[in-house]
Amino acid sequence: MHTVGHFINGQHVNDPNARTQPVFDPALGVATRQVALASTATVQSAIAAAEAAFPAWRETPPSKRARIMFRFKQLLEERAEQLCALITAEHGKVLSDALGELQRGIENVEFACYAPELLKGEHSKNVGPAIDSWSEFQPLGVVAGITPFNFPAMVPLWMWPLAVVCGNTFVLKPSEKTPSSTLFLVELAKEAGLPDGVLNIVNGDKEAVDALIDSPVVQAISFVGSTPIAESIYTRGCATGKRVQALGGAKNHAVVMPDADLDNAVSALMGAAYGSCGERCMAIPVVVAVGDAVGDALAERLAAALKQMKVGPGTEPGNDMGPLVTPAHFEKVKGYVDAGVAEGATLVVDGRQTRIASAPEGFFLGGCLFDHVKPGMTIYRDEIFGPVLSIVRVGSLDEAMALIDAHEYGNGTCLFTRDGEAARYFTDRIKVGMVGVNVPLPVPVSFHSFGGWKRSLFGDLSAYGPDGVRFYTRRKTITQRWPSSGVREKAVFTFPSNQ
Amino acid sequence: MHTVGHFINGQHVNDPNARTQPVFDPALGVATRQVALASTATVQSAIAAAEAAFPAWRETPPSKRARIMFRFKQLLEERAEQLCALITAEHGKVLSDALGELQRGIENVEFACYAPELLKGEHSKNVGPAIDSWSEFQPLGVVAGITPFNFPAMVPLWMWPLAVVCGNTFVLKPSEKTPSSTLFLVELAKEAGLPDGVLNIVNGDKEAVDALIDSPVVQAISFVGSTPIAESIYTRGCATGKRVQALGGAKNHAVVMPDADLDNAVSALMGAAYGSCGERCMAIPVVVAVGDAVGDALAERLAAALKQMKVGPGTEPGNDMGPLVTPAHFEKVKGYVDAGVAEGATLVVDGRQTRIASAPEGFFLGGCLFDHVKPGMTIYRDEIFGPVLSIVRVGSLDEAMALIDAHEYGNGTCLFTRDGEAARYFTDRIKVGMVGVNVPLPVPVSFHSFGGWKRSLFGDLSAYGPDGVRFYTRRKTITQRWPSSGVREKAVFTFPSNQ
Amino acid sequence: MHTVGHFINGQHVNDPNARTQPVFDPALGVATRQVALASTATVQSAIAAAEAAFPAWRETPPSKRARIMFRFKQLLEERAEQLCALITAEHGKVLSDALGELQRGIENVEFACYAPELLKGEHSKNVGPAIDSWSEFQPLGVVAGITPFNFPAMVPLWMWPLAVVCGNTFVLKPSEKTPSSTLFLVELAKEAGLPDGVLNIVNGDKEAVDALIDSPVVQAISFVGSTPIAESIYTRGCATGKRVQALGGAKNHAVVMPDADLDNAVSALMGAAYGSCGERCMAIPVVVAVGDAVGDALAERLAAALKQMKVGPGTEPGNDMGPLVTPAHFEKVKGYVDAGVAEGATLVVDGRQTRIASAPEGFFLGGCLFDHVKPGMTIYRDEIFGPVLSIVRVGSLDEAMALIDAHEYGNGTCLFTRDGEAARYFTDRIKVGMVGVNVPLPVPVSFHSFGGWKRSLFGDLSAYGPDGVRFYTRRKTITQRWPSSGVREKAVFTFPSNQ
Amino acid sequence: MHTVGHFINGQHVNDPNARTQPVFDPALGVATRQVALASTATVQSAIAAAEAAFPAWRETPPSKRARIMFRFKQLLEERAEQLCALITAEHGKVLSDALGELQRGIENVEFACYAPELLKGEHSKNVGPAIDSWSEFQPLGVVAGITPFNFPAMVPLWMWPLAVVCGNTFVLKPSEKTPSSTLFLVELAKEAGLPDGVLNIVNGDKEAVDALIDSPVVQAISFVGSTPIAESIYTRGCATGKRVQALGGAKNHAVVMPDADLDNAVSALMGAAYGSCGERCMAIPVVVAVGDAVGDALAERLAAALKQMKVGPGTEPGNDMGPLVTPAHFEKVKGYVDAGVAEGATLVVDGRQTRIASAPEGFFLGGCLFDHVKPGMTIYRDEIFGPVLSIVRVGSLDEAMALIDAHEYGNGTCLFTRDGEAARYFTDRIKVGMVGVNVPLPVPVSFHSFGGWKRSLFGDLSAYGPDGVRFYTRRKTITQRWPSSGVREKAVFTFPSNQ
Repeated sequence: MHTVGHFINGQHVNDPNARTQPVFDPALGVATRQVALASTATVQSAIAAAEAAFPAWRETPPSKRARIMFRFKQLLEERAEQLCALITAEHGKVLSDALGELQRGIENVEFACYAPELLKGEHSKNVGPAIDSWSEFQPLGVVAGITPFNFPAMVPLWMWPLAVVCGNTFVLKPSEKTPSSTLFLVELAKEAGLPDGVLNIVNGDKEAVDALIDSPVVQAISFVGSTPIAESIYTRGCATGKRVQALGGAKNHAVVMPDADLDNAVSALMGAAYGSCGERCMAIPVVVAVGDAVGDALAERLAAALKQMKVGPGTEPGNDMGPLVTPAHFEKVKGYVDAGVAEGATLVVDGRQTRIASAPEGFFLGGCLFDHVKPGMTIYRDEIFGPVLSIVRVGSLDEAMALIDAHEYGNGTCLFTRDGEAARYFTDRIKVGMVGVNVPLPVPVSFHSFGGWKRSLFGDLSAYGPDGVRFYTRRKTITQRWPSSGVREKAVFTFPSNQ
Repeated sequence: MHTVGHFINGQHVNDPNARTQPVFDPALGVATRQVALASTATVQSAIAAAEAAFPAWRETPPSKRARIMFRFKQLLEERAEQLCALITAEHGKVLSDALGELQRGIENVEFACYAPELLKGEHSKNVGPAIDSWSEFQPLGVVAGITPFNFPAMVPLWMWPLAVVCGNTFVLKPSEKTPSSTLFLVELAKEAGLPDGVLNIVNGDKEAVDALIDSPVVQAISFVGSTPIAESIYTRGCATGKRVQALGGAKNHAVVMPDADLDNAVSALMGAAYGSCGERCMAIPVVVAVGDAVGDALAERLAAALKQMKVGPGTEPGNDMGPLVTPAHFEKVKGYVDAGVAEGATLVVDGRQTRIASAPEGFFLGGCLFDHVKPGMTIYRDEIFGPVLSIVRVGSLDEAMALIDAHEYGNGTCLFTRDGEAARYFTDRIKVGMVGVNVPLPVPVSFHSFGGWKRSLFGDLSAYGPDGVRFYTRRKTITQRWPSSGVREKAVFTFPSNQ
Repeated sequence: MHTVGHFINGQHVNDPNARTQPVFDPALGVATRQVALASTATVQSAIAAAEAAFPAWRETPPSKRARIMFRFKQLLEERAEQLCALITAEHGKVLSDALGELQRGIENVEFACYAPELLKGEHSKNVGPAIDSWSEFQPLGVVAGITPFNFPAMVPLWMWPLAVVCGNTFVLKPSEKTPSSTLFLVELAKEAGLPDGVLNIVNGDKEAVDALIDSPVVQAISFVGSTPIAESIYTRGCATGKRVQALGGAKNHAVVMPDADLDNAVSALMGAAYGSCGERCMAIPVVVAVGDAVGDALAERLAAALKQMKVGPGTEPGNDMGPLVTPAHFEKVKGYVDAGVAEGATLVVDGRQTRIASAPEGFFLGGCLFDHVKPGMTIYRDEIFGPVLSIVRVGSLDEAMALIDAHEYGNGTCLFTRDGEAARYFTDRIKVGMVGVNVPLPVPVSFHSFGGWKRSLFGDLSAYGPDGVRFYTRRKTITQRWPSSGVREKAVFTFPSNQ
Repeated sequence: MHTVGHFINGQHVNDPNARTQPVFDPALGVATRQVALASTATVQSAIAAAEAAFPAWRETPPSKRARIMFRFKQLLEERAEQLCALITAEHGKVLSDALGELQRGIENVEFACYAPELLKGEHSKNVGPAIDSWSEFQPLGVVAGITPFNFPAMVPLWMWPLAVVCGNTFVLKPSEKTPSSTLFLVELAKEAGLPDGVLNIVNGDKEAVDALIDSPVVQAISFVGSTPIAESIYTRGCATGKRVQALGGAKNHAVVMPDADLDNAVSALMGAAYGSCGERCMAIPVVVAVGDAVGDALAERLAAALKQMKVGPGTEPGNDMGPLVTPAHFEKVKGYVDAGVAEGATLVVDGRQTRIASAPEGFFLGGCLFDHVKPGMTIYRDEIFGPVLSIVRVGSLDEAMALIDAHEYGNGTCLFTRDGEAARYFTDRIKVGMVGVNVPLPVPVSFHSFGGWKRSLFGDLSAYGPDGVRFYTRRKTITQRWPSSGVREKAVFTFPSNQ
């Protein structure tokens, strides 16, 4: 069985003695590869490679760094099929969805190409008499990224392209569940001309994560994963003086108003709830119906739509939804559906009996739809990360908003309406970082930034986009005057001001 | 003896049962007031007042919030004399220096007046077909500031004016050594029209600080003080999910090159080393002479200049330097001078015997000058915060830079030269956040941001200026489309991209 | 009779031999002052004063220039009553409206206070190896403004405060119909600390305008007035190498959709059509009703509202609308009403017989309302600049938009609706520079920029706000490297690129 | 003989009856092709094609427009050899220089790729109570470019890639002397996916130019060429209501200070004076020596360097300089050298007798060096656009600056020095738009903007970079509020302000 290893200083690295872990093909339901789990020493060698590559990379003009990203984008487009096949083989999502993921990732590479524009500082002439001042945004040094299984191409592409065009060098620890596509990305980056050591991958588990956090060389960590881990990494990383941005869980609500275009909303909700099996931090697992008429209509139309949804292996054309990622995750999600029934929610559509003839061992769970879900229930409170959509009914927009604001998470949300005032009222006040109006997955485009509120993000700065640039650079402010020949100036003991 | 109390919800608050602490007039050498030390309950009442004031203040248009800052600036200018008298009476700095401090603080108020410009978000049309997206920078809610004794007017003005024009409400805990001028500022803010509860002051010690950190209502903390406290507040604050910026200590080096205008450099160094008795985080306590010729000349000319420097009460016109802030601090600084002698540095000028006839009990220490100071010595390593300047001699600019980069702190630094290339080389590479070229105290002006590197600042974002705006606001990104009447759209299960 | 003169180099200037012109009090219906009309020589002396003041003013740090604007704002607020009395005495608008005008002007002064932020250039490190580049926005030198009668305080305040904080010196030629309030502003600017010569006023007519255009010293002209003059000044000014922005006429349409809040729309339209007697370039003289039901309702409710509108001297509290500005303008507007009747429009409300008992000689015209107006009619095509509102009826939003886009002017427009999609469709496509959604007078706030499209503005850059800064400054781009000692570099004959 | 035709609506267009003009290979000294000269009707058909393509192109999201530029960049790099061969075959410059030109052009394409970032507008929440306002930068429609012979690839790439990513459609009229490489670029753009009609080329002469200026459809013109034509196009274009930026001639001075690294300066000057035969608007034809010692040294070393410079066909590897572009231009430049001798300048090196054995009929003129040139001489005043460098001697930096500021042109300039203060003094005060410090050709990089001062540029906005975006877009400002259900608001007759 093939072992997926590390990529350090431009070379594939494999330690035959390393611990390993199986990697599944979730449609087949069997482990098809294994992944090496880096030791502390392996992580340290990756950090050392990044540290060694930093001085020369720092001096490379931003426009030259960006040019490598131009070539990298081209390679990603040329090898998209190969890359998406790797994503689907380990994650399970349908190929068209893998392509959507990749395209979003490519958009982040495009943004990284803007580096010369993004790194401009502010220049002020005459802040005092003949004194000028300007800011520079300098790279931090070695930075690290830790990324989740659900977007093995996209989330790494949120991080390292931007970090490296800013002049940093990078150590990436991707998810051990889906390592192959991420590794392939890095091979392409080398092919695009990225110097050895600028980008390194270590596969691994907690030992690798700890080695990154504990390293005094690592200046910053970007993390995407679950909230408990995000919080832990944030707290520990901050305590070691690193800058950390740690993105955690979500429970995104869509609110459907009585004036909404219901067919449109149902179509949007189907994709947002069940696409990628709900394994997205921007998925919509809760729809809040304003009024029972809306609730009844949604229940009926979503149930009808679920009957049309095609579940099966991601590699088969025409399927809408593939399997869950691992057997453990399959059991966990199924357990939530059981709990929902036990807690009294109405299970309108039950996907638990779904069997796929062409893939009988796969981790397939059909789409599930609950109605009359209440805030106290487990299926409402927890992030399920599976194909389970809950309808909650409320009497007014204010009530819907109170519900959302009371939830632990504040990642994304969406309002379906035709009314300008409702949209403004909702987007202004809701305590959520990414808000859609008739857009079910309001993932900001690559030239804006991604960030939730409340316990969905720990840190000051959002991911990618303009905030990403700030996160991966350190401000330096220079104040300069030149002496006039022959002019003697007397000492100034008072605090200088530009009065 | 007058007790300086708190200011909560627009009212002076005094608890007769509260613990108190003496406040000295350092020129007189006696306690002239005492300051109340807030209990946890008092701090909580201030936080509650700020929380209650938030909703209405958040809705107030930024231009109206800014207009209050316009009026506040005007009041600060009209009452400058009264305010500076309070600064000098408790801190000891000479009145002209207090005025310099105030002027810098007013500049921060001016920057706060730019709020409508500063709060602009980015708007993108057609991020996808007929889909628009924009960012908003929304206030955080209740934020807190904790400020040091050395700039009782300026450092608070770095924080709360910007925080409140961004729509936040504020609780300020100023230094218990110099409370009166800070309190006076807040009275002026009320007079300028700031609604009750938007800005609150609690005087206090560790109990008050802990109450701020422990409050789940407080969303963010800005701190300026020593590095150990800064680090502790940063770590604890982050662990409670707050955003924190914590500015700590400094040991700023000035480098003098052989081509520098020496008279200019000496004048600049005198002010930077001895102004405000060295009690500034941007003071220059170390001058690095490149070459012995420069070292000899500096020692000679600085010694000569010290003879001309007038030490005495801050209230007497013509004095250059006043007393240290407290008897304890006086003893601490004097101890450092003793240690320097003991460790083998050459004490060129000894200020320890300075006695002021008109103020015999004041905490006066004359300016001290050491030569041949070595990196291992205590007076080199520690932040003394007193009128003690050390000359270190090196052989080259690279050697000077290695010295600076090896130090724990990275707040400010300065190069004296006429050479364009030396300036560019130094400013580019030195690991310090604020860099001067022939500017001894490169404190960024109010429309840039203040922030050190290394252990001088904990957090991603610098203080005041553009970074301050980002610190005091939370990004929200909205993505919006409107349905076309009668158009049915089919479900999209793949991840949406703008391809 | 008092003669309003010029203000040159900090002094009032009057030439007893100059030509003069009467200035009316339109409520009294008599000339109460006369205004001097500057000769070419007088204009040249003002230009010379501005030229002489430029070098020192250019060197003054932007923060110091801005501080004068802070003081100026304060004086404007303190003397508001006196200033508004002058506006009403010469223009006729009601005092509360004069105060609204002044407040908008003060907002432009506030924006000018942001100068240090606004003048920041862009700084790029390493555009090539060890090569840095940055932009500076330098002042132009002497610039001129030519302003109309309808906003004698606001429109001058759009121009010169921003021009002077950018480092320019200024010659202003205000309207000869309303000179006194403008002159008073300039006295206040001197009182605020503006150095002599930085701002100069010449009153005058075409001779003065020609002298400004013909001067090789004047670098730029900002003009606001009618389209024929705007076009002429633009063409002539450009031909002499000046930069020119020339704002001309308007015919702003409001579109009312069937779903609009009609009472709200009617209230908004009353103010927008009749406020300041319609003498505003952002007034709404045309309302486009989508559907006859809307048209009928508007005709009825507007007619009812007109009966409640109080017409009379601007100095009498409670009046909604004052007189027209001059007898000539009164006759012109009345002639348009006659023409509308003759051309077959339905005159729903006829204001031609309005007589004011307390001011029988004033130039009062009551509010007029036409229905069933057609595009071919004179009252539709021409800018009337009087209290005449025309209802045009169409069958759809697209039809309304076609009408607007076919008109010569493209200054402002507004849509009344509740529908998000209608608003997005309208604002995206309409060929108008300033667009309101349920905002009848979408005058951009001072921190945005004012500019129409089509024949409403000649020039690339809009007035005030960010565009104003660009108009009043000239970009300079510096590219800098420093030679490395001892390094010999060989000649490069090929075109340099940062590859 | 091949006739180079037009490219309209995605198709090559040739009119067999059209007027034509020969195109030379300047190294061979013979006409090798001819170029069609478009009739007014042909130009109008190109404009019509652009107009027809506009609506759909305008709706295309900026990120999709930019993606075509990503592909176009890739094609330019893949076909660089073929493209450079075409440049050299018609312009004569050496191949390595053609590659340098192309690389700069590619950098402008890279900048165009940033479109989504560059087109962001400013969004303001709560400009008044519940009122929001934002700006959009919308495309103009059909815009035109007119470009010169000296950079047949680069200057067109300054214009149309940025114009089209902003959503405009384009008609380009390149130089009739060097049409083939420009045409090839457009073929590549089509191959990259640019829709038909978005970019059109018409070759031609004054008739074509007039047709562009006279068209009411064309909204804007970018021109690069000589000052008399620039001025004429600016004046005529402005008079027809177009926005115009017209870049004209130059006479760029380099100033060499006594402290400069002379070898470095000489190397830099050789390339800047003789590269591309001096046919660059950023060439350095005048070097100002500060002090006779500098003057003597420059004369000696430049003369020595000229002996090493290899002149010959651009296609032969190793050559530094090729022929002049046409026989007429050869005669004109030679005439200037004759005039310089006649007017009394010292001709240190005479290139007039240069003969190239391998290319005896080519338009080769050897590098010429004049010393002791005076301001009154023709060779000082006029833009020669040939390989002729003049040394002027002055006594001080101020004298050098007075000389530069007295010249008609203000395109570029450069100072050679090691002194920080000299650099700051020079760059601050010199009346030139693009300033180098030890950088002989301070052409701003693509992410800054290109623009001279004085008679080197007519218009407000510079070419390419951030200014290019502003030039190719029109600001629209939207102000929006939504009515609150059931809330009645009364009419406001006074002018609205956000007080």
